[in-house]
Amino acid sequence: MNWHVPDTDDTPAAVVEEQAATWRPLAEITRELVDLCVMSDVDAEEVRAARAHVEAAVARLRKVRRTQTLGQEHLTGGRRRPWGNPVIGLRNPIAPPVEVRSDADGRAETAFCCGAAYEGPPGLVHGGVVSLILDQVLGHAVAAAGRPGMTGTLTIVYRKGTPLGDLRAEAWIEREDGVKTWARAHLLGPDGVTAEAEGVFILPRHIRERLTSERSSA
Amino acid sequence: MNWHVPDTDDTPAAVVEEQAATWRPLAEITRELVDLCVMSDVDAEEVRAARAHVEAAVARLRKVRRTQTLGQEHLTGGRRRPWGNPVIGLRNPIAPPVEVRSDADGRAETAFCCGAAYEGPPGLVHGGVVSLILDQVLGHAVAAAGRPGMTGTLTIVYRKGTPLGDLRAEAWIEREDGVKTWARAHLLGPDGVTAEAEGVFILPRHIRERLTSERSSA
Repeated sequence: MNWHVPDTDDTPAAVVEEQAATWRPLAEITRELVDLCVMSDVDAEEVRAARAHVEAAVARLRKVRRTQTLGQEHLTGGRRRPWGNPVIGLRNPIAPPVEVRSDADGRAETAFCCGAAYEGPPGLVHGGVVSLILDQVLGHAVAAAGRPGMTGTLTIVYRKGTPLGDLRAEAWIEREDGVKTWARAHLLGPDGVTAEAEGVFILPRHIRERLTSERSSA
Repeated sequence: MNWHVPDTDDTPAAVVEEQAATWRPLAEITRELVDLCVMSDVDAEEVRAARAHVEAAVARLRKVRRTQTLGQEHLTGGRRRPWGNPVIGLRNPIAPPVEVRSDADGRAETAFCCGAAYEGPPGLVHGGVVSLILDQVLGHAVAAAGRPGMTGTLTIVYRKGTPLGDLRAEAWIEREDGVKTWARAHLLGPDGVTAEAEGVFILPRHIRERLTSERSSA
């Protein structure tokens, strides 16, 4: 269930750039650390020393903690900047991150890499990670088509194992009916489609009201 | 799509304990770091200093890198120790982690916490994270029932937003038919069920063959 509302942000571009330049490199090196937590094979002494470095980083960062999450804060300011999102967030080390391109026809696509930290079956992407990414890409498609919404139902059909490594995902609108939008997506590995998704998205009330008032004032 | 095969591991318990004692604390402090990447509000200078500490940790851990993922390595040894799993893995900072209890009737349950790094809509768990966790718990249910398998189809119905914080998940077997097992699960927040899941699991060939030979030798 995601709010897929169009991005609006009234922070000056230079400030946004500066904030991104501050936080993006921290998230990037932390993604490397996450990968090494599962892929490193150094001895116990090295692990202890590495841990001490991470503790020092944590001690600095916890000096000032937000009272609201990034999602709540940006909402408060009437803005939408999904930097904390676990799939696309530039500040979130859990995110691969996925960068999604979309157009007004409701097509969305992305190319990205899933490393060892996303492994479920040996050598393959965890089936739940497959659903996590497809849910996100479906949401971009409906938002791009002007039909932003919350996921009502998500169905994933797994065709074969998705190998770790470079992947692509594509999503498109299937049909619209009242407050509902049906969108489809698939995930592709080097040997073609590995999983297919269908999502039913429900227009949230505040969007329905806005669309209604826009129509009546047009 | 997950391999939900019974755990077998012939490594001496003391060695496993020692390895866990080495890697678990690194994953734990890295989870805190991940949380702070989205929740810290320190200034740019502190962020740069924190980054330098993380770089030092990464430099140590990358001195020896595995040639195989944890999943592949444990498979090679005929063992199954899901330490790299992105939902339950004790070495994986992406994992909350979730600890699942299950019984031979195919019931599985877990209580866990989803912090800000799992946020989708403001204050709510990302819909794809909901599906990631439910897929994992469904897999534990079918494995516990002696019907381990790969997810064929996963359907999630989102009833309402899942708040960040303490959550519970429960899964159970619905029915079995030949190589297929249907299992259901739900996710619960403080106000009850937020999402429901159905998974259809397919017995993998090597398990089917083992079950057949066990039956014929019984």
